Amino acid sequence: MGSDGGLKRGFWSMGQLDRELAESLLESARRHAAGPRRSAILPATEIAALFFETSTRTRVSFEVAATRLGATTIHFDSKASSLSKGESLQDTVETIASFGVDGLVVRSSAAGAPQLIADWTGLKVVNAGDGAHQHPSQALLDLYTLSERLGSLEALSGLRVGIVGDIAHSRVARSLMEGLNLFGAEVTLIGPATLMPPIGFGPAARMSSDFDECLGDLDVVYLLRLQQERIGQGLIPSFGEYVARYSLTRERYRRLKPEVVIMHPGPVYPGMEVDSAVIADESSLVRSQTRNGVFVRMAILEAVFGEGGRE
Amino acid sequence: MGSDGGLKRGFWSMGQLDRELAESLLESARRHAAGPRRSAILPATEIAALFFETSTRTRVSFEVAATRLGATTIHFDSKASSLSKGESLQDTVETIASFGVDGLVVRSSAAGAPQLIADWTGLKVVNAGDGAHQHPSQALLDLYTLSERLGSLEALSGLRVGIVGDIAHSRVARSLMEGLNLFGAEVTLIGPATLMPPIGFGPAARMSSDFDECLGDLDVVYLLRLQQERIGQGLIPSFGEYVARYSLTRERYRRLKPEVVIMHPGPVYPGMEVDSAVIADESSLVRSQTRNGVFVRMAILEAVFGEGGRE
Amino acid sequence: MGSDGGLKRGFWSMGQLDRELAESLLESARRHAAGPRRSAILPATEIAALFFETSTRTRVSFEVAATRLGATTIHFDSKASSLSKGESLQDTVETIASFGVDGLVVRSSAAGAPQLIADWTGLKVVNAGDGAHQHPSQALLDLYTLSERLGSLEALSGLRVGIVGDIAHSRVARSLMEGLNLFGAEVTLIGPATLMPPIGFGPAARMSSDFDECLGDLDVVYLLRLQQERIGQGLIPSFGEYVARYSLTRERYRRLKPEVVIMHPGPVYPGMEVDSAVIADESSLVRSQTRNGVFVRMAILEAVFGEGGRE
Repeated sequence: MGSDGGLKRGFWSMGQLDRELAESLLESARRHAAGPRRSAILPATEIAALFFETSTRTRVSFEVAATRLGATTIHFDSKASSLSKGESLQDTVETIASFGVDGLVVRSSAAGAPQLIADWTGLKVVNAGDGAHQHPSQALLDLYTLSERLGSLEALSGLRVGIVGDIAHSRVARSLMEGLNLFGAEVTLIGPATLMPPIGFGPAARMSSDFDECLGDLDVVYLLRLQQERIGQGLIPSFGEYVARYSLTRERYRRLKPEVVIMHPGPVYPGMEVDSAVIADESSLVRSQTRNGVFVRMAILEAVFGEGGRE
Repeated sequence: MGSDGGLKRGFWSMGQLDRELAESLLESARRHAAGPRRSAILPATEIAALFFETSTRTRVSFEVAATRLGATTIHFDSKASSLSKGESLQDTVETIASFGVDGLVVRSSAAGAPQLIADWTGLKVVNAGDGAHQHPSQALLDLYTLSERLGSLEALSGLRVGIVGDIAHSRVARSLMEGLNLFGAEVTLIGPATLMPPIGFGPAARMSSDFDECLGDLDVVYLLRLQQERIGQGLIPSFGEYVARYSLTRERYRRLKPEVVIMHPGPVYPGMEVDSAVIADESSLVRSQTRNGVFVRMAILEAVFGEGGRE
Repeated sequence: MGSDGGLKRGFWSMGQLDRELAESLLESARRHAAGPRRSAILPATEIAALFFETSTRTRVSFEVAATRLGATTIHFDSKASSLSKGESLQDTVETIASFGVDGLVVRSSAAGAPQLIADWTGLKVVNAGDGAHQHPSQALLDLYTLSERLGSLEALSGLRVGIVGDIAHSRVARSLMEGLNLFGAEVTLIGPATLMPPIGFGPAARMSSDFDECLGDLDVVYLLRLQQERIGQGLIPSFGEYVARYSLTRERYRRLKPEVVIMHPGPVYPGMEVDSAVIADESSLVRSQTRNGVFVRMAILEAVFGEGGRE
């Protein structure tokens, strides 16, 4: 309890969470990680997965989570759908809603689409990533993974986290900043000035365009994915230039604190944002992030679709 | 009972139904609408969905219906299949049949494919749309939705239904005409002469190329989807011309009877066959059509694959 | 028991089988063919299907087999995946493994990928075809189908089997040769010299470039699929030339022994490797091969993922 309304209408933004609700979700994820793989917590629930952008890890992670809770998932392949015939998003979504499902997991390139869809349909909607806006299940699994490595959520307080790369276009960065802020971590946003966020992007954070200068201070380095199209848009001069200044090379890795942890939302393209040897090192939490994603999404689905408690 | 053979071999055409059998299916659909969402009516049934044409609403509607009856569906994605390597339809279908499934739900661009496939394989086949031939589950859900709005099936007798658009190429129109004919409705086919059906298309119906002239007489306006390729084929001069004469604009809508109902098989492209404000009005049954599709398809699957009764 | 280790780590090559283990798998397949369609042999097992090459029959066959054993399958569509964004195979595979599944069914164009993936992930991996290397479930279903027709596995001893076509690039040929060798059949590889395998391809076998000369001696004609790209590669001059010398035409069919059996792994393109009347004849086992594929794959999945016995 504690927060205004909980997640009974859906979960589209980290802004819906206060610290108490976030802790409750993470505690629920821990119970799912420790518990039996399968349960009948959502036995008659039907959830449609609407992915308007391609995705492997997030889509499968949500589907596995739903299945393990006993729910039924309905897969909607946007490529094969009538959207390619020119049908509007609203019509597609209302059609799926008409089938009488209990809710939707939505990924869309349109910022705000999940909440809009919840309004249109009256259905519960879980955001699996909307444009450059929010990716709240990713932020929660990152918090989970960090607290697992550090031993407690309390250890996040005062932790120095550097988020590196294309901040301006990153729903991951935005959601994670809000999540870290709840637990008192100190965030530094690192990247070229052209990829820094506009004012009002999220909670206050330090900014730096000099990764090298920050290295010695960071407890956590969170690397974002760089999309090729940023070059064509003139936001970065070349990949070579980007790698030279912002990639976590082996050389930079050696200058980090010994107990530093490395995170990345995946998929990782070794040699771009990070050296392949670094990402394979034991300080990297990439595999843990993926594994924990299922537990965190079970907690989210239970909070949104379950009968009892996690409100 | 009542009709010759029932649907135990499959359901590929409205021509298989007499009034008694149609009523029985619609009554079964009403029981599914009123009953619990899930049952174990088809507990060990395996149904393969073979969609050789893309579809969202029909495919998902059948899959949801099958799942709610306790059946297992096997999804066959024609894009990823060996058909793209040159395999013949017959070989693909016989392969699926060899897996030992109980039956198939088939959508194909080839008129007559479902019955042919039933002959080839000996399996039960449900037609989810075959070329310009038949779309019987759509016709049944339209009858269901109309009778739900009107209060009874008897109210269909003498009802004046205008089907508007590309009649000649429409499996929806053909199946619906046969269905309406069973219950004594009076059908007027409305569209440009180039899109009127050939002789022998279906039950006798009035025809008109003047939508405006018909407006005041209609109790139901059923709008068909217009496919872009009709222009390239020289069957209509332009979309603008079509909209000017056959689109249900707000202006035409005002000249309809106050109690008129508007139907469309979806997907709707607002501004083409119908104005977006009209399709969103309460006289529009579009959402009801989609919702009822699941109940009607549950009734069809039960009649085809079930042990007892609905023959 | 009997063989070193059984299949508890996975099944990627016919080389893992001795005669005793092969017999045990085929006996298990017979029990599945005779038994009830559904069981709860693998009630809590989660198996991800990773098909990096398109496939209908093999993918669906494995999914049906898994479902009938009570397992859950997770479908990974390589087209929609992050692989298209440039993610490496290893990263994709490790991501799927991170979800906590029990194992993978993998098809890949890379020879050796299944065993590599088993090493990377520590998960059980079943090979559904890897490049030109191995297709062991196909070989087992072929052995099953042959012994079913002949009445026993013992009848394979001394049986004269001609494998016809593109031997060099065929994982089917390689696995089948190893399987036939276990049971004492005599294999002749038949095809143009440019499509004959290199030394060390598999067990010793006779080779011939003269199909006509071999016809009278063969008890089994196993036709391989010919891929169009072989022409572009200069390995065969034209389809016409190939058909003239290596297609099982009606004329050649008449010169075979009366009790000969015809096999083909599918999909069959009539008129290329074989005449359509021949493949439809009762001497053709093509449909039986597909049907038996499900039973054999149930046996394989039970051996790999089951608690008890088939080691």
